[in-house]
Amino acid sequence: MIHSSWMRGTIILGMLMLMMLVPSLPMKAHTQSQGNPAVAGPPFNLMPLPSSVQADEGSLRVDASFGVTLNGHTEPRLDRAVQRFLRQLSRQTGIPAFANSAGSAKAILTIHTDHAGKEIQELGEDESYTLKISANGATLTAATPLGAMHGLQTFLQMVEVTPDGFTAHAAAIHDQPRFPWRGLMIDVSRHFVPLDILKRNIDGMEAVKMNVFHWHLSENQGFRIESKKFPKLHELGSDAMFYTQDEARDLINYARDRGIRVVPEFDMPGHSTAWFVGYPELSSGPGPYGIERKWGIFDPAMDPTNEKTYKFLDGLIAEMTKLFPDHYFHIGGDEVNGKQWDANPKIQQFMKSHNLKNSEALQAYFSGRVQKLVTKHGKAVVGWDEVFIPGVPKDIVIQSWRGAASLAQAASQGYQGILSNGYYLDLGWSTARHYAVDPMGGAAANLTPEQKKLILGGEACMWSEYVNAENIDSRIWPRNAAIAERLWSPQSVTDPASMYTRLHAINERLELLDLNHQKYYRPMLRRIAGSSTPEEFEALRTLADVVEPVKDYTRHALAPAEPTSATPLNRLVDAVPLESDTARRFADLVDKYVGAVCRDSETGTRLRAQLTLWRDNDARLEPLAQRSFLVKEVTQTSQDLSALGGIGLAALDFISKGGPPPDSWKADQTATIQQIQKPKAQLLLMPAAAVQKLLDAVAAGGSCAGAKQ
Amino acid sequence: MIHSSWMRGTIILGMLMLMMLVPSLPMKAHTQSQGNPAVAGPPFNLMPLPSSVQADEGSLRVDASFGVTLNGHTEPRLDRAVQRFLRQLSRQTGIPAFANSAGSAKAILTIHTDHAGKEIQELGEDESYTLKISANGATLTAATPLGAMHGLQTFLQMVEVTPDGFTAHAAAIHDQPRFPWRGLMIDVSRHFVPLDILKRNIDGMEAVKMNVFHWHLSENQGFRIESKKFPKLHELGSDAMFYTQDEARDLINYARDRGIRVVPEFDMPGHSTAWFVGYPELSSGPGPYGIERKWGIFDPAMDPTNEKTYKFLDGLIAEMTKLFPDHYFHIGGDEVNGKQWDANPKIQQFMKSHNLKNSEALQAYFSGRVQKLVTKHGKAVVGWDEVFIPGVPKDIVIQSWRGAASLAQAASQGYQGILSNGYYLDLGWSTARHYAVDPMGGAAANLTPEQKKLILGGEACMWSEYVNAENIDSRIWPRNAAIAERLWSPQSVTDPASMYTRLHAINERLELLDLNHQKYYRPMLRRIAGSSTPEEFEALRTLADVVEPVKDYTRHALAPAEPTSATPLNRLVDAVPLESDTARRFADLVDKYVGAVCRDSETGTRLRAQLTLWRDNDARLEPLAQRSFLVKEVTQTSQDLSALGGIGLAALDFISKGGPPPDSWKADQTATIQQIQKPKAQLLLMPAAAVQKLLDAVAAGGSCAGAKQ
Repeated sequence: MIHSSWMRGTIILGMLMLMMLVPSLPMKAHTQSQGNPAVAGPPFNLMPLPSSVQADEGSLRVDASFGVTLNGHTEPRLDRAVQRFLRQLSRQTGIPAFANSAGSAKAILTIHTDHAGKEIQELGEDESYTLKISANGATLTAATPLGAMHGLQTFLQMVEVTPDGFTAHAAAIHDQPRFPWRGLMIDVSRHFVPLDILKRNIDGMEAVKMNVFHWHLSENQGFRIESKKFPKLHELGSDAMFYTQDEARDLINYARDRGIRVVPEFDMPGHSTAWFVGYPELSSGPGPYGIERKWGIFDPAMDPTNEKTYKFLDGLIAEMTKLFPDHYFHIGGDEVNGKQWDANPKIQQFMKSHNLKNSEALQAYFSGRVQKLVTKHGKAVVGWDEVFIPGVPKDIVIQSWRGAASLAQAASQGYQGILSNGYYLDLGWSTARHYAVDPMGGAAANLTPEQKKLILGGEACMWSEYVNAENIDSRIWPRNAAIAERLWSPQSVTDPASMYTRLHAINERLELLDLNHQKYYRPMLRRIAGSSTPEEFEALRTLADVVEPVKDYTRHALAPAEPTSATPLNRLVDAVPLESDTARRFADLVDKYVGAVCRDSETGTRLRAQLTLWRDNDARLEPLAQRSFLVKEVTQTSQDLSALGGIGLAALDFISKGGPPPDSWKADQTATIQQIQKPKAQLLLMPAAAVQKLLDAVAAGGSCAGAKQ
Repeated sequence: MIHSSWMRGTIILGMLMLMMLVPSLPMKAHTQSQGNPAVAGPPFNLMPLPSSVQADEGSLRVDASFGVTLNGHTEPRLDRAVQRFLRQLSRQTGIPAFANSAGSAKAILTIHTDHAGKEIQELGEDESYTLKISANGATLTAATPLGAMHGLQTFLQMVEVTPDGFTAHAAAIHDQPRFPWRGLMIDVSRHFVPLDILKRNIDGMEAVKMNVFHWHLSENQGFRIESKKFPKLHELGSDAMFYTQDEARDLINYARDRGIRVVPEFDMPGHSTAWFVGYPELSSGPGPYGIERKWGIFDPAMDPTNEKTYKFLDGLIAEMTKLFPDHYFHIGGDEVNGKQWDANPKIQQFMKSHNLKNSEALQAYFSGRVQKLVTKHGKAVVGWDEVFIPGVPKDIVIQSWRGAASLAQAASQGYQGILSNGYYLDLGWSTARHYAVDPMGGAAANLTPEQKKLILGGEACMWSEYVNAENIDSRIWPRNAAIAERLWSPQSVTDPASMYTRLHAINERLELLDLNHQKYYRPMLRRIAGSSTPEEFEALRTLADVVEPVKDYTRHALAPAEPTSATPLNRLVDAVPLESDTARRFADLVDKYVGAVCRDSETGTRLRAQLTLWRDNDARLEPLAQRSFLVKEVTQTSQDLSALGGIGLAALDFISKGGPPPDSWKADQTATIQQIQKPKAQLLLMPAAAVQKLLDAVAAGGSCAGAKQ
């Protein structure tokens, strides 16, 4: 999936259709989005923030005597959820008793669940819960097991270390999701992702109350699920890296236990080269085919004019809709470049005889046929924007990579949709940037209330060109937690400062789920450094902490050689987090400093310490650059950081002295910073903009030395 | 196992016996221990250091084209070893091709194995190998698969990042172990250790060429292996935390694949309370029994006078010797306090009628009976020192917790032994201290060559009173790698500086085996800190990095409340590594500084920076101490660190100024340091001794200011 602006190609026409009645979904929770969350008392580190939190006096001790009882409706899934909760509480506190049966547990937390959930988890099930914590105990009430499970996660987030041990602050929390579809998509095709890594990411989803795992199972680069009916799909299309059907069932059960639906995606008619390795007859070209090793949009596409294609798909969809119980079935449908169709006389002939004017029309024809097959097998279709074509049934869900406008347009015509544009985790955006994207933003704000109900939520997307088992967690987390909040919490919850504070807390908690999104970092830097002294390694770390991979789709464009699935992901660009906390905090500090009427000397001292560290860092790193090609690659970036430190220090000097800098000094430094801001080794040096601000503050008139006492 | 001096109790008498002919074991490798390893050229980060390394010109590129072929004897175990090697090489370099079948591999490394190993791995099998690496390729030759596997680990350690990519330096390595028994014991009874954690520790053992996993399966606190014959053993004696027989078989196969034997231990007649929960009739007291929750030596012991005891043990040994294929079977035998025997008239009567003068004699009687049962089932006995009793058969192996003298005495009488005294990982010794312990040290040095052959090696022991799944890896690694080197490398390899350098390198590599001995640290500190700013957390880290848990058996004595298996291991003492690298490096720096004729000003600057950080740290940590009881606990230690920083800085000032300090100043500071050196919160502040050295340097006459230019 290369949903880049330079590849978008054509937009499907013919989207204007008669409005139809919207099937009424039981999505009570979905409509609740008004009002600020009422958080009184101490700020709780909750993410997503509940729709209503009222802090009370006192707090509940969480010690070895802590226990849980289930009231009302019970089922094995709830028992397992409680066991999981206790294990997690044990990890969080280090108190072993919860996890052992040996503890002398009292029923401190009482859970009352009103009734069972659906046999197969459905879109729009009641997920609400009420959690009341007092000094004497806690009660969690929920309509369904889903709500109870969400409430347990909130309880875990309420437990904090205090001077008196571990406690949960007294509070009354009423909570329900804003949107009923809160998903994470993982592309397991471009790089295979082992099952245990998917599981720990599903644990992470549970922690932040996401409820759809979208499993992108097939691509040009791999067909990743066992087909018993068409075994050459996975046998020849996966380099032996696929999930067995037993494994898929295991994952589906694992997800259901955590209140998460699993929606499989079989991307067609494009993005399907890996299918053709075993079944070239499905394609529109002559073949033969090999598994695609490169990234991008490729020519091979299924032959929409061949009845055998539909017969094959009928069989496959029959098999896969049986394997995947969810009501929704994703058929992809994105980015067909039409070249194979153009080059195939038989297909051109078919288009003429069926009055299909262009590739888009042919794809619409194909989509319509496939949708009928999915419907025939009792499921509803999800597809990327391109599947939104005239006459498509109303139970389709459109997943928009194109943006909110596209989604609003579909909704205005009575179609359900979910937003993914703005939630592409692979693009390296800051958390704040993702957080600012709202499914109800832009054109959607003008929809009628009924139309708004059609916007079901959104999905974060983890495309895997540049992620593998080693670093994928770090590309998903913690940013995905902020997207989860966007989709769960009231629309009014938008303050980035609050978000970052709470993100910092949840980030640590996520590590207790065995996600390695923080732990992966040092070993990757170690590999880059090779044998090194602590000082040398610290220098590498100092540099690594302030760079980020280039954003959006520039990584591909800036690659030193065409990247493939065999390209090692062992460089600094693969190791560093996608968002530099150090750079963000430095920028905040600079803002505080230059924004003040009088320069705060403590802030100045901290800035100076940071800038001095950076200025002197290249000399410390230099020995490593001599020894490791992976450090050598970032030599210029390291020198840039030192230069940046020097410029910042000089700017601070001018500011504190108050005198004007020499002629052209500022222009020279600005030019240097502009050079520094150019990507090198596919990395951006993040503090550059903040240092430029310091520089601008010099020009702005220096210090308020006159005002000093 | 509380092998403390204050619990040693009595020493078994009657150890003097006639010397008998030693059965000749095929332990060619064992006798090779003379000579320095010839390491020419660049220092390689190999651990254990091979017996001979000759560096050559050039180096071998390790890139995507790298491949392996097997020649000579082949077997599935070798194929799996090669696959594992390639996966590990892939993790080490980040080059995916090795791990995929898709690579365009050439045979760069050729492995020739001469013949098969034993069906069941035996003590003393040939483990030697020769590894030759040139710019054009590498050959690994070995007599058996064991040698080939060891050679593969050496190759992995030879691969380094260089300016030209990943390479292995050209070299000729001839290698073989000094001792044939190089073990790690893990006590899974006091705290249960999940199977996957055992597996990753076995991976670690493979990396450092250890070959015996000693599985301490039963104790007062838990009987951890499923018995089909006596199911109440694990059902009532394990809190449902036990290994099934299938899991045991899985682990045995896993270990065999890595050249590692598995020796199970069933500790008896003491250390066996957990057995009596289900089978009180085995005991010498009235019962009933519960699983023991405390640590220490307890009264319950098996009844050696009851024939039913031996009938039961006959059945259990029959079952377990079938499950565990290794020739050796560990029967424990340590630390019986004799109280139940003294209190039981029937037993007293038996002792009189059998002329057994005391508890030791009764235990000897018991040991003799059990040894016969083990022999009957075709196995040979391993036991702790106490099983070394008159008339015991010569194929017994004595595992010495008492020390080298005890081992030498046994050897002088023709008995085989392995050393564990000095290798107790739970005692918190520095790596250098373990490293200095040699099985041939002390009295063993005076043995005849034939007697020396009876010293088979040693075992590191991980007793688990204060370790659990979360921190156990950190208590075993990296120190166990140095013990592995002691048991593998020539006796002449003893330089601690070289050891620490190479340990640092292997330490990082071990993380690529999923050992979490480094990764565990930050999450544990996070739990202690709770919500914290980066600066606050850094302050906690600064403190944590320079403390170590109290040594030997003082932790139990200094416990704020009697510790049990339900005691949380969530305090700073549980989180910090057992050896402070920061303190060790600081001490090295102080030695360098005070040892120089003229004070090196760069060293002085570094010392000053470190001491300043410490001096100011308590103020930074203070907010956390207000918020978390787990930080509050170390308030005094934090203040001590600040005081230490202040003293060190003052000492540096006097040294650099050259003037004498005021009267009594030095004595006052020394008194303060003595206070600081007392354990608090079961922690030792490690830099205290080095700061005292600085202080002593003041008294020694200050700087050589006169000599300065």
